[in-house]
Amino acid sequence: MAYRAPVAEFRFIFDHIVGLDQVTATPRFADAAAETVEAVLNEAARLSENVLAPLNRAGDLHPARLDNGIVRTSPGFAEGFAAIREGGWMAIAAGPEHGGMGLPFALSCAVNDMMGSACLALHLIPLLTQGQIEALEHHASDAIKALYLPRLISGEWTGTMNLTEPQAGTDVGALRTRAEPNGDGTYAITGQKIFISWGDNDLAENVCHLVLARLPDGAPGTRGISLFMVPKLIPDENGRPGQRNSLKVVSLEHKMGLHGSPTAVMQYDGATGWMVGEPHKGMAAMFTMMNNARVGVGVQGIAIAEAAFQHALAFAQDRRQGMTPKGEGPIIDHADVRRMLAQMKAETFAARSIALACAVAIDMGHATGSADWAARAAFLTPIAKAYCTDVGCEVAHQGVQVHGGMGFVEETGAAQFSRDVRVTTIYEGTNGIQAMDLVGRKMMDGGEVAYRLCEEVQDAAEAARARFPDLAGDVWAAAESLRECTEWLVTQDLNDRFAGSVAYLRAFARVLGAHYHLMAAGADDARLPLARFAIRRLLPEHAGLLAQVREGAAGLYDVTPEALAS
Amino acid sequence: MAYRAPVAEFRFIFDHIVGLDQVTATPRFADAAAETVEAVLNEAARLSENVLAPLNRAGDLHPARLDNGIVRTSPGFAEGFAAIREGGWMAIAAGPEHGGMGLPFALSCAVNDMMGSACLALHLIPLLTQGQIEALEHHASDAIKALYLPRLISGEWTGTMNLTEPQAGTDVGALRTRAEPNGDGTYAITGQKIFISWGDNDLAENVCHLVLARLPDGAPGTRGISLFMVPKLIPDENGRPGQRNSLKVVSLEHKMGLHGSPTAVMQYDGATGWMVGEPHKGMAAMFTMMNNARVGVGVQGIAIAEAAFQHALAFAQDRRQGMTPKGEGPIIDHADVRRMLAQMKAETFAARSIALACAVAIDMGHATGSADWAARAAFLTPIAKAYCTDVGCEVAHQGVQVHGGMGFVEETGAAQFSRDVRVTTIYEGTNGIQAMDLVGRKMMDGGEVAYRLCEEVQDAAEAARARFPDLAGDVWAAAESLRECTEWLVTQDLNDRFAGSVAYLRAFARVLGAHYHLMAAGADDARLPLARFAIRRLLPEHAGLLAQVREGAAGLYDVTPEALAS
Repeated sequence: MAYRAPVAEFRFIFDHIVGLDQVTATPRFADAAAETVEAVLNEAARLSENVLAPLNRAGDLHPARLDNGIVRTSPGFAEGFAAIREGGWMAIAAGPEHGGMGLPFALSCAVNDMMGSACLALHLIPLLTQGQIEALEHHASDAIKALYLPRLISGEWTGTMNLTEPQAGTDVGALRTRAEPNGDGTYAITGQKIFISWGDNDLAENVCHLVLARLPDGAPGTRGISLFMVPKLIPDENGRPGQRNSLKVVSLEHKMGLHGSPTAVMQYDGATGWMVGEPHKGMAAMFTMMNNARVGVGVQGIAIAEAAFQHALAFAQDRRQGMTPKGEGPIIDHADVRRMLAQMKAETFAARSIALACAVAIDMGHATGSADWAARAAFLTPIAKAYCTDVGCEVAHQGVQVHGGMGFVEETGAAQFSRDVRVTTIYEGTNGIQAMDLVGRKMMDGGEVAYRLCEEVQDAAEAARARFPDLAGDVWAAAESLRECTEWLVTQDLNDRFAGSVAYLRAFARVLGAHYHLMAAGADDARLPLARFAIRRLLPEHAGLLAQVREGAAGLYDVTPEALAS
Repeated sequence: MAYRAPVAEFRFIFDHIVGLDQVTATPRFADAAAETVEAVLNEAARLSENVLAPLNRAGDLHPARLDNGIVRTSPGFAEGFAAIREGGWMAIAAGPEHGGMGLPFALSCAVNDMMGSACLALHLIPLLTQGQIEALEHHASDAIKALYLPRLISGEWTGTMNLTEPQAGTDVGALRTRAEPNGDGTYAITGQKIFISWGDNDLAENVCHLVLARLPDGAPGTRGISLFMVPKLIPDENGRPGQRNSLKVVSLEHKMGLHGSPTAVMQYDGATGWMVGEPHKGMAAMFTMMNNARVGVGVQGIAIAEAAFQHALAFAQDRRQGMTPKGEGPIIDHADVRRMLAQMKAETFAARSIALACAVAIDMGHATGSADWAARAAFLTPIAKAYCTDVGCEVAHQGVQVHGGMGFVEETGAAQFSRDVRVTTIYEGTNGIQAMDLVGRKMMDGGEVAYRLCEEVQDAAEAARARFPDLAGDVWAAAESLRECTEWLVTQDLNDRFAGSVAYLRAFARVLGAHYHLMAAGADDARLPLARFAIRRLLPEHAGLLAQVREGAAGLYDVTPEALAS
């Protein structure tokens, strides 16, 4: 049941669903010719299948551990990381100014998808480093860029993001870590950060921490936060890692999954840091990084959905239990097993299409400077993050179910997917926060982007109506109720929107997913059965979801804490 | 965040939702007076809260292990088991003929609910033993009853169920374990069984295995299977455990959760067994046990839902993050957190009501011999098993989500609930098998029971219409579409029913759950807000589910293995 990278699926979605050609037609991405895309996909597939996938189980069984203050990584991770680094896979979307390839973010998402399927825990290093690179590209001084970017892009050094403190999770503004000016342009960083993924490792020459902290004159809340680069080893005048900085890993968390990725409690004791961006503008800089990181986490959900699906499919094609409607065949011929597998496949396709549509919008925003593309990217980002990670959890859950009793036993690996993916609906902003972002900040335009997307879906449905009258009709009607619900939603108070926000996000993803399935059927006859499955069996869920949305917060707070506790 | 047994909730459901008074009014259960019920609930609550709940984490951290062929249980489990045994809690529903209390199964479910919340892994011993007792009560010879029942009921000995073999899971008929007559009335049992929960322990004097095996003249498939009692230690003429039988634990599984419960591979090498019931009628005997065991597993789902909900509620009442609509309060005042908690509570209530309604039907069937009650019990059993365990998984998942990052870290315990409950949708017949049972065997009456239940729901909605016009209208209409869908379903081919069976079961549970919520609001004003939440926000899901049902198997097999693999 080895992982096989779905290269043809990426090609299909790029060519027929999300239009990567728009991206590669821009001057900025002119280097990403079709042969380059093809080569990147094929090489990343090879690395993922042959080098990374075999490490996944060892990461689970032999978690990273803290050994006298040093994080010792799981067996084989050193070789895996070396292969990622040597292949130039740390950050293929990083800009060419500092040694990057400047490839589209959408292509980078496909690469992350494959590597995440193969070994989510190890692949979190490049994923986090990519986020840090992006933040530095946008906000750091030239000196910091020149020092750090080439080494992060090459994978000599790795990057982390330090936001959370015990009292400051979702509420980042409550953080207490302090930054005191040292008088020489550097700052002394003091405080404790928790949940720091890959807070240390024994794989790279240096670990670079981007740390949110408050200057002495920083206002309370998010407005008083600044961002600092705090390296584990302070680079000397030649950029070589030198003196040990005053920071350490205090402990590693014992987690439900993702054991191969050390999650650290970090202690900063007057550690030397360099400011990134403007004073008190740390949150804005962090958000630059977080938006793409959110899509990146969505892709982690897809990655696990893909891996869990392949695993379950292989099992269902092999396992025999009783007579099926087709005779003495494998369990895939039982109606409900076929239903589960079709659902897993349909959801994975929809999730991947949504994430890559978002990535294309991000690329187009960067390449063209168009506010429309940027707004579309901003709107799709929380949907991609939340829906794709929910799909990751659901598909991994169904993957266990397909395995029956063998699914609950760790030896098969089905359970590991389910445990590993569980964090993706939580970190980088919980899915509830994504939904609030969608109906709040992302609809401050009065719902413009939402309407535009509904219109796109309806236009495509109109165009498909001649060939697929019933399916096109279903998709058109669903988009219409989504549009009507959006009209209602934007007139509501914020908390009424919040109350139904998770349902609204899911309904939006349902409609978009059905739309992409319909497009797929139009482009390739062989995809019609799965499109029919998705539109006839999954899309109808949207009606119940929109009913939830329209309840708003009415009566919600009447379910009092006392009533809940009684 | 200690577990608090929801005694008032059981009382409310018994009194106002499922009518336990019907049961206690029968001669058979005349001993279960109101004071007895009250005392049982209170004592079980005390044991669960004070003795069992503190063991739960140790069971997870220190799994049962195999030590030179002997299973060593988790720290504290010996004391916990002793408390269960000494309190007389092994099997309160067992008949008085052999030392049982003969209390209603419904009351036993409430006790199992509390003990399961407190420590699912340890409580699996009494749950399995209860199943074995029931099988023996119905099928064993007087000699076997006299020898085994008093000791199982007292907890001196414990019981297991041995069905599964590597090639025979859902397809029990494929089993290969052989039973050869020894000529003295006993049989030599030879074969390997897997996934045997509590296949051994160091807590009880003896472990009694009920083993499915095939006689030399047994036909292939399920028709040729017989049932045998195979004790670990062969009782001597005085019933004292004597000579070691030829059976052993080969290994224990490494599982995703429920670590405190040893899951054994058992090897029988000509072990001495005694037949239970008639030759070749083993499946029928096993089904007697399995039906109530299915409700028992459903109750495990509820138990974890309750525990996970309480855990999340306590966290949400304590944790502060950012400004809520009510000011600087705990996160429970954020709309989406309140929504999650209300959903967890509403689902748990619905699941518990369905399981206890099923248990009351089982009791009434036994007490009155009425075929109507028996048919109702048979129909509700797969719904109770599948819906309640799905709810267990969903609520535990949301419990992790409410905790945010702390949920993924094992220290909080939220993750353990999620891992432990995962097996309940699989064992005792996967939830897919339950759904096939519902639309297949349980609707061979042409849907009679389904119609009767829809009618009950509609009658109750009519009666509630004056007080709650909108809610009653919603419930009535949902029952009507369920009835119409049922009319359609019973005319379909079996595989068309199977294709939508999981959706049909879920839709049925949605309607029943809404019905019970409406009844609850009628009985207690304080329950109206939660009822409104359930009916307005959760019930609408049924429409999308029924749309899935009506697709049947049409087009499902067009999603070919090749299309899935491409």
